[in-house]
This record gives sequence, C-alpha cells and structure tokens, in this order.
Amino acid sequence: MTIRVGVIGVGIMGADHARNIAHNIGGASLAGVADIDAACAAEHSYGGFITVDALELIGHPDVDAVIIASHDSTHAELVLAAMAADKPVLCEKPLARNAADSRRIVEADLEVRARTGKSLLGVGFMRRFDPGHVRLRRTIEEGELGRVLMVHCISRNVSSAPGTSNESAIMNSAIHELDSVAWMIGSPIAEVAWIPVGAGSVHAAGSFQDPAFMMLRTASGVLATLELYLNARHGYSTQCEVVCEEGTVSLREPAEVEFNEGGKNFVEYPADWRPRFAEAYRNELQAWIHAIADGTGNPLASGQDGLNAALVGEAMVESMRRGGAFVSVQGALVG
Amino acid sequence: MTIRVGVIGVGIMGADHARNIAHNIGGASLAGVADIDAACAAEHSYGGFITVDALELIGHPDVDAVIIASHDSTHAELVLAAMAADKPVLCEKPLARNAADSRRIVEADLEVRARTGKSLLGVGFMRRFDPGHVRLRRTIEEGELGRVLMVHCISRNVSSAPGTSNESAIMNSAIHELDSVAWMIGSPIAEVAWIPVGAGSVHAAGSFQDPAFMMLRTASGVLATLELYLNARHGYSTQCEVVCEEGTVSLREPAEVEFNEGGKNFVEYPADWRPRFAEAYRNELQAWIHAIADGTGNPLASGQDGLNAALVGEAMVESMRRGGAFVSVQGALVG
Amino acid sequence: MTIRVGVIGVGIMGADHARNIAHNIGGASLAGVADIDAACAAEHSYGGFITVDALELIGHPDVDAVIIASHDSTHAELVLAAMAADKPVLCEKPLARNAADSRRIVEADLEVRARTGKSLLGVGFMRRFDPGHVRLRRTIEEGELGRVLMVHCISRNVSSAPGTSNESAIMNSAIHELDSVAWMIGSPIAEVAWIPVGAGSVHAAGSFQDPAFMMLRTASGVLATLELYLNARHGYSTQCEVVCEEGTVSLREPAEVEFNEGGKNFVEYPADWRPRFAEAYRNELQAWIHAIADGTGNPLASGQDGLNAALVGEAMVESMRRGGAFVSVQGALVG
Amino acid sequence: MTIRVGVIGVGIMGADHARNIAHNIGGASLAGVADIDAACAAEHSYGGFITVDALELIGHPDVDAVIIASHDSTHAELVLAAMAADKPVLCEKPLARNAADSRRIVEADLEVRARTGKSLLGVGFMRRFDPGHVRLRRTIEEGELGRVLMVHCISRNVSSAPGTSNESAIMNSAIHELDSVAWMIGSPIAEVAWIPVGAGSVHAAGSFQDPAFMMLRTASGVLATLELYLNARHGYSTQCEVVCEEGTVSLREPAEVEFNEGGKNFVEYPADWRPRFAEAYRNELQAWIHAIADGTGNPLASGQDGLNAALVGEAMVESMRRGGAFVSVQGALVG
Repeated sequence: MTIRVGVIGVGIMGADHARNIAHNIGGASLAGVADIDAACAAEHSYGGFITVDALELIGHPDVDAVIIASHDSTHAELVLAAMAADKPVLCEKPLARNAADSRRIVEADLEVRARTGKSLLGVGFMRRFDPGHVRLRRTIEEGELGRVLMVHCISRNVSSAPGTSNESAIMNSAIHELDSVAWMIGSPIAEVAWIPVGAGSVHAAGSFQDPAFMMLRTASGVLATLELYLNARHGYSTQCEVVCEEGTVSLREPAEVEFNEGGKNFVEYPADWRPRFAEAYRNELQAWIHAIADGTGNPLASGQDGLNAALVGEAMVESMRRGGAFVSVQGALVG
Repeated sequence: MTIRVGVIGVGIMGADHARNIAHNIGGASLAGVADIDAACAAEHSYGGFITVDALELIGHPDVDAVIIASHDSTHAELVLAAMAADKPVLCEKPLARNAADSRRIVEADLEVRARTGKSLLGVGFMRRFDPGHVRLRRTIEEGELGRVLMVHCISRNVSSAPGTSNESAIMNSAIHELDSVAWMIGSPIAEVAWIPVGAGSVHAAGSFQDPAFMMLRTASGVLATLELYLNARHGYSTQCEVVCEEGTVSLREPAEVEFNEGGKNFVEYPADWRPRFAEAYRNELQAWIHAIADGTGNPLASGQDGLNAALVGEAMVESMRRGGAFVSVQGALVG
Repeated sequence: MTIRVGVIGVGIMGADHARNIAHNIGGASLAGVADIDAACAAEHSYGGFITVDALELIGHPDVDAVIIASHDSTHAELVLAAMAADKPVLCEKPLARNAADSRRIVEADLEVRARTGKSLLGVGFMRRFDPGHVRLRRTIEEGELGRVLMVHCISRNVSSAPGTSNESAIMNSAIHELDSVAWMIGSPIAEVAWIPVGAGSVHAAGSFQDPAFMMLRTASGVLATLELYLNARHGYSTQCEVVCEEGTVSLREPAEVEFNEGGKNFVEYPADWRPRFAEAYRNELQAWIHAIADGTGNPLASGQDGLNAALVGEAMVESMRRGGAFVSVQGALVG
Repeated sequence: MTIRVGVIGVGIMGADHARNIAHNIGGASLAGVADIDAACAAEHSYGGFITVDALELIGHPDVDAVIIASHDSTHAELVLAAMAADKPVLCEKPLARNAADSRRIVEADLEVRARTGKSLLGVGFMRRFDPGHVRLRRTIEEGELGRVLMVHCISRNVSSAPGTSNESAIMNSAIHELDSVAWMIGSPIAEVAWIPVGAGSVHAAGSFQDPAFMMLRTASGVLATLELYLNARHGYSTQCEVVCEEGTVSLREPAEVEFNEGGKNFVEYPADWRPRFAEAYRNELQAWIHAIADGTGNPLASGQDGLNAALVGEAMVESMRRGGAFVSVQGALVG
C-alpha cells in the first residue's frame, strides 16, 4: 500500500519534504502540493496536483496524509482541519504560534485518541530521528554511563534571519533544544533561565542580543545549558554533551571528508541545517509513512511534546523579561 | 510507477537489500525473493512471493527488476538470464568468478546496448554511492587541490572469514579498491604489485598472509597504495587519502557520537561493513530504482567496471605469485 | 649567573619543582629544600641542603630565590618572610587562605615596588604558561576573531580528594579559571553565580555537590561558564572555548599518540594535572629564572592577581550560600 | 657542575641549539660559538666567545662539549677533531656526507669506547626524543598491541629547498625515517625500495620527482612505507602509524588550539620542522647534558646509528637508480 501524501507549503522545508516524499521514501507517493504561490507549488509538485487552497488539499480524496510546512501562523488551523478530516498529519515545528493554540490542538488530539485509540498528529522535531541524537538518548536509557548530571548544548547558525528578536530566537530556534533535552532525558523541563550575555555580536541587528545563554532544569533534576548563537559566522553547528556519573557522550559533527590545505587540517561546516539533518528528515518521514501504513500510531513528537516546547519557550521569554531569574514551566507533561 | 523488485539470495547482503526495497526505497516494492533455502526466503519476503528457483524469479511477470546477491559462483549465469529476460539487474560484486566469465557478460551487455541504446546491467560497487567516496571523487574532478599524485588506501576488517586465502582476499576484499581507485581517478589501473609483508598476523590461518600491501598504478600515472588487513581486530575501517599538488583530502570515519570514559576519549568502529556503508547501499538502490523508473540507463558501476576489477585482481594474484613484481593489467577499459 | 633556588615543601607539586630546578631549568640550581618531613626533604634535595625550618631556608645565604609549595595555610607568612629577606619568591596558588591575608601580601608587595621599582612576588597560576592558554590569549589580543562574547570552561578530574567541599572545590580547583578567564580576557571578574546542579554524582561524598556549574562576568561584559566536575572518572581534562564575533578558538587536549584497539579509536587522558601541565610548569619556572637573572621584574601572576582570584572565589562561595544569585566581586583590580 | 658548550655553525638549527643551551637547558652554559660568518656568530653568542675557526672552538679550554651544526660537508672532520680532543660531541644529522666517512668515524668511536668504556659521540636524530615517537617505541617494546606487522610513515614539507634532488631528498629528509623506523622496531633496515611515483608535483623543480614513495624492510621482517613529499604545500607534517596484531598506534599531530572560522573547524600546521620538534630538540639537549654531567655515556643516536642511516640511504639511492627494485643494505648493525 502506498501512502499518498499532500504537502502544504513548499518553501525551503516543504520543498525538501515534497522531494523526499516523491523520490526517497519507501511506500509513499506525492499526491499533491498546496502553496499560496501557485508557481512555487508547480515547481515542487513532481507530477502531483497543485492548489493554492490548503483546505482543498486536506479534503482531496487522493490525499491519505498531510504534511504542514506552511507559515507558522497557519499551523494550528490546518492541523485541526487535517484531524477533522481523519487524516494523519505531520506538522513542522512549531505546532502553533503559542501555548494557547497548542493546547487547543492537544485537546482535539486527546479527543481523537479517546475515540480511535490512536493519534493522527505528529510534530516535526526531526532531531528525534537524527542518528546522533538517537544514540545519545539510547546511551542515557541504557544507563551505561550512569545517571545524567548535566547536559551542554550549543546551537550555532551562520547568520540570523532578518527580523529575528530575542523572543523569536527562543520560539523558533532554541525550540529544538527545549524539546530534545526533555526527550533525551525522559523528563519534562520544570524551570528555565535566560542569562543576559551582554550587547552581543555586532552581526545581530537592533535589540536582538546574540548569542544568548539559557539554562533548563528537568523535573528529574538535570541541569542543561544552551548557547544559542545565530550569527556565529563560522558555520552551522549543533553540539550536545551529556555529562554522566561514569563519563560523557557527545554528538560528533558529521563530516564525510577532511582536508589538508593552506596550512590547515580541516573539516567543513554546512551553511545551514538541511545538510546536517538531511538524514534525520528522511528517517522521520520514513518512520511516519511506515507507521501510517502499519496503523501503529504516531512515532513522531506528539501534540503534547509540541505544547511542552511552547510552554518552555514562553517561560524562557518570561525569564528574559525578568532579567535572568529562573522561571517555572507550567503545564508540561510527558507526552 | 512502482518498480517491483525480485531479490535472489537473501544471505547477509541480500537480506539487507530485500529489507531496503520493501521498506526504505521510494518508488520500489519487493515482488518476491528467491533463495535455495526456502525458510530463509520466507523470512525475508515481506509479503512478496518466495521461490527456491532463481530463474523462476527472473521470469516472474510481477518482477520488473532483479537484484542478484546469491553465491558468487551463480552471478554470471543469473546476470545473463536477467538480461535475456530484458530486465534491469543489479549484481552484487563480483560480477563473476573470473575475468573470462565477466567478459562474456560484458559482451552480452554490449549487444543489449547496441540493440536498445541502454544497459540493463549494474554492478554493486556501493562505494560509488558512499557520500565520502563521492566527495573524494568530486574534489578530484573539480581540481580544487590540483592534480592527483598519490592515493593511500587502508581497508581493515575485524577478522577474516574461514578459508580466506591470499587470492580470495584480493578477489573479494581488495576488489573494492581495485574498482574505487580507478573510478575516483577516472583512469583504469594499468599495473599492480603485491608486496610480501612477511609471515603476518597470528590471527590469519594457514598460508594466508595478513596484512597484505599492494600498489596500483593508473593509466594516467597515479600511484595508489593499499594496506588490506582482514584480521585487524580493532574494528572495520575504510580509509583513503588522495594526495594532490595543493593539498590532500581524506575519508573521515563516520561516528555519530564520541565518548569520554575510562581514561579515554573515543569513537567506536563498526564491527563490519554494513553500518559503515548502510547509507551507500540505500543510495545505490535508490539511484538504481530512479534510473529504471526514468529510463535513464544504468547509474551504477557497469559490466566493464566489473570486468576491469576482475582483470586487475587477476594481475594482482599474478604479482603475488611472482613475489611482488609489477604486473601489467591487460584489457581494462574505461567502462 | 646561576640562580640558586630553595624550595619549601616537597609534596607532589614541590617535588616536581625541585626536580625541575635541579635538572631542567637553564640558569638555575637547587640550593636546598625545606620540609617539615626531613626524610621527604632528603629524598628531593638533589645534593642541596635540607632543613625542616622554612625560615632558615629563606634566610640561607646560598638561596637567591624561593619557591613556596608547602601547605596552603603557610603561604602568607612565608611569602612575607621571603619578601622581607629581599628574595624573589614564587608562591604556589593560592596566595593565601583568604582574601584578607592576600590583601596584606599585596600591600607588602606594593611597598616593595614603591621602594625598588620591582615586585619580588609571583603566584603560580601555571596556566598562564601553558602553550594552549597562551595561544587563546594571544588570539583574543590580536583580535583575529573579533570581540569575545562568551567563554566556556570545563574542568574535570578523575576523583576529588577526601574532604573536598563545595567551598574548597571553588577555592582550590575553580581558582584556576577564576584567574585564567580574567587573564585571557584582560578584564577582572565583576560578578559571579554558582548554579545548583542537583544532588550530583554518587562519587562525591557528603554534602559536596559535584559537578558544580558557575558563571563569571568580566568587568568588560564577557560571560564565562564553568563546569567543575571533580569526580568525572573518565580522566583529567581542561577545556576552554572562546566564542567571538567571527568564530571560536578552543583548547585542544594534548595527546602524543592515538590508538585503534578493541573497537575504538582513542586518545588517552592523563590521570591528573601534572602530565597535562608539565610544559606549563617548566615554562613558568624558566620564565621566572630568566626574569630574576635579567632583573626584569616578575613575569608570573602578581600578588594582585592572587588577591583577585581569592576575592572572586569568596564571591562565588557567597553565591552558593545564596542559592545561585549573581554576587558582585568587590575590590578586584587589574594586577 | 655546569657543562660549558661550544656550538659550531649557527645557521637555522645551530642558532636554535645556541639559544637553548644559553637559556633553556639545566646544567649547561654557552661557552662560545664558531661560524665562518663572524657577524652571525656574534648574533647568537649570548655573551660567549666567538670565532670563525671551528677547531679553535673545539680546542678552547672553556669548552667542555661541542655541538656541530655547520655544513654537512664539515661534519666528519669536526667530529673526529672533537673526539681527538676528548670532548663529548653532538653532531647534527647527517653524521657525514657518505657511508665511507661515517665508517671512519665509527671506527674512531670504537677505539675511544675500547679505551675509555664510553662513547663521546652522539648523532642528532632528534625524533628519538620527541614524546610522540618515544611513545610509539614504548608501545612496541611493551608489546601491548602484539607484534608489529607494518609501519606507515608520511613526511611532508611545505616546499623543498632550491637544488633538492631525488638523492638529497633521501639523504637529508628521508634520513629521519631511515633511522627512526629501525630505532622504533629495534631492528636494522635490511632492504629498501624506491618506487617511481611519476612526474610528480609541478612545484618540484627539474628532475626532482616529488612525492617519492619508499619501502623499508627490517631484518626482523617488518615492512615500512614512506611517502616523502617535500612540496606538499599544506603544511609540515610527520605521520607514523604502527600496525600490530591487536591494533594500531599513530602519532597525533600536535596542536595547542583549534579554530571554528570561515566554514571550517581546523587546526594549524607549522610551516616547518622547528615548532613541531621544538620539544624533541630541547629534550635531546637536556638528555645529552645530563649524561655528560653524570658520566653515563651517550644517550643519543650513536655513530653506528648514523652510519646505518647513511648505508640505508645509499641503498635507497641505488634502488632509485635501478627503477624501484628492492636493494639489500650492507653493513647496518644494531648500534
């Protein structure tokens, strides 16, 4: 059985999803593409239908499952529409613009689960399918290094998008760690703090302070730190070291080759997140398609996970406004 | 259009191919499996048909394309049968037991190409789809480090299979470098030498001398060296450094994470080739399926490439018998 | 001219200094050794005189300069005695047991400097002579990566000494970073915070919470973080990454060789700080001897630097007692 | 007791030795310097006497021991003169211009040893004092990885000196490996081969073929390979991997810091051998001075070792002339 997928929004991320579904995912085909820009939709349709109406795509009889990669502001409405149409939906992060909207979705999801026994909703926290992150989590679960004591995360981009603010840096970029730390440790984030670093880099515009330094404490007591640096210039880099009682385990930045040239021995950084997480995205889509085909329920981050990340993000913003005090996260649950 | 694939031989490698075709390759489905062990076939059929008769699978109307992963001794006959049935065929390396059989296949392939304009035959030198090897080749082609002067290859396994001999180590293991060096450099191997290392490791049984040290010279004049060490104990490792006029580029051993534990900072080696080349195998299958669907001709190593590797291997065996003298390779052509 | 050095206290560190002075430092000789354990003194005297009386050594006519490596509680009195005897003195860190005693020494040092134009006092913060730390500082000074924005430090030991407390971990171990961050950045530490990590490792005894996480902010606005983990088990490790506007620069853990063995590619950690900083100690002693011979004034950390580190440490202890609030450092000056 | 050292020849290497002896070596002082260029001698005399007459320096009553770092063509005569004056002598490599001259020196050395029980002669193969090489040798000796089977050496320079020929590349550059392989393995080199690589780099002038590829086989049966590449452009690099029955051990290129900048994670190569082997040179001089002071005999490479390297080099040149055949080394003995 081939799962016929419709993709809503074929900007950078949606275009990658459409290409993967059309070409690289076993058991899937691309039924059609919706984008408010019809030309853009056509460019990424790979022979499927095109429409400018996302709701039309959701309701289309040839669409078995939906990927939402349109503007963040549209996520909540479209997720609810897909669920109302009884179609499995993969929503790119963030699940919604805020915790309140996320909560509405979680409630709808709970209703579906109560009715059918299974969730239709998956949230696109792709790091959960990155081999490195999977290995970190497995090492923690198997306990081979003893209990986790601390986690150090570093997330660096080459340059921030125009209009990035301290808030959006938290809600759109740090959001990955706000989810992945809880997922790795197996415990929700209980409190957070946003520590002022200072004026920050000249490469960050306006009131955006870059880098930012954040702390997260899980309900189980693990302290995680995060340097988020969106104008790091040197390359795209995702680092994570898990510090345990008997040793540590860290992500290793992937690099296929290394060079000796010009006085240096070097490996190259990717310019953005797509090469770094290409395998994670493919694995995520493949797992999603398998689960739909097998009827085994959502294997991705859940609606509750999406809500949790939003709640943690809002607490982080609150800490920032209070000048760095620890702020408790209200309402996060194991998803 | 879904390409329905039949897999012949579901030992270690064929089982991986069957699983990939059934689950992880876009545009493909597993039609059926043939194995002389029917129980083994059943175990890896994923809902497809099973048979103990490879020729039945090749002729089966539900099979659009064939993967041959059965015993090396069966390759030549089965490849010829698939070509006679006008079905695209991916033959695991080696193409045949010897150069003479390989040559018969190349002749049949030439006949097909003359008749239809396209080859039906691909040979499973999966390194050509390994991101690291692809990057080495691209770096060479783009000339960013100037002309290639030397290549250093190291190929290490944990332990050799029972019955491994100096000859089989060349024809079954070194065969990968015999192909990949020519492919990377873009020039066939013109002469080779097998240098006696000495008694070798105590872990190698009988007259098998392990490690072996070999040299290959391309028609374009590049000298490549190869340490082949099948009882290296420490892990499975494939290394290659390309030495150019302006610098060097090397494979970097993949590792998702690194550990600090027990006085050491370490990364782990895989125990065998499958984790190391899992992505290469998937990429190879995906490229093969795309090309069949698109009708764009074989994107894998060609029959001539398979013949070339056999010819180089036979020259290497001859050098070994002569105690290490350089031996010319007869008949290798750009495929 | 050979500088004749007397060493007070030949425990672990003093024994190393005595051996270096006797054997490996150009322009120096070991005049004698003082230790309350006469047998221990004899064992490390290399032909020099021995005494159980530190003041006798300081006053000895064959002693041109004094190294103090005896118990921390003796440092202040002995430093003052050496200065009173007009002899150059290298005092192992810490300069004194507390800021008050350190301040008395700084005042005496200022009096000497006012009288003679030169300081007699150097404090043994050997990281200032570690090639890696020197290179970090030079990179910052030369500005090749732009302004410094953050610094991440990690300091790990295999296991903590018996009786280690949260306070002693700060005053004896973290003290190195309390000095080195200010020295690298070229700005004194203005405020600090000690963040509770939780119960910590089972390997830490009693009320000692291990690891500890600290933050330091320089007067110039740079935020530095420090993970201090004295029971890290995996090895002795000193890490530091300086995050700048155009890139980052990090210490690289020294390792002479790497191994492939037992499924791993690894480098080894030293068991303690002495191999890691052997070159730093030698460089420090050599620079000290050269400066004495040349009459060019103290090239080591100054008394003010020692006082600064004590003040920062005391503020850190205060933060710990207050449960993690930032605490201002009073009185630290550029030395 | 301070050993008063005279240095003959203060070009690049001799100037480093003079500076080290004057400043950085315990128990030594710089008595004087001889150079045919008096101004150059003056520049590197650090308060010692200067002369243009090397024999005057050797005979000077204030000179206890002699370092010879003058032109290679002068080594033999000056070594013999120092030995005739009963003064310990450290001769930079090569010991002499050829094996015949080396043999005369070895005979004189044997006569001294027969007469006094100790050798006066040490040869400056400084790798024997490089911590990485020392660690390789110790790992081999202790047998922790089982028997040695192969050794892979790579020696790269940024660019070759004007006038470099295939012969001089062997006798002046490869000479280090011709010594160090035998020293590490504990067995003299029994046969060698020089394999033509091809036209080589455009950066090598005239008939000099660069890189060169060589093989060495020890009397004990270990095969070592050497890539010697004097115009490698990318940096100065000395690599060595020892391949054993239970694993491998390799030199790790020293680097104090690593950078993230401009899309790359990198470490820097030194531009030439002096930073790479600075510690080896210091260790070598310190060991030499200690041995003179203690009267414990020469701790450096012996005259026989210098002769061995010359014999192996001459066999390598012979192999080159014969187009790459293995050539036996005549007369090498364990020194």
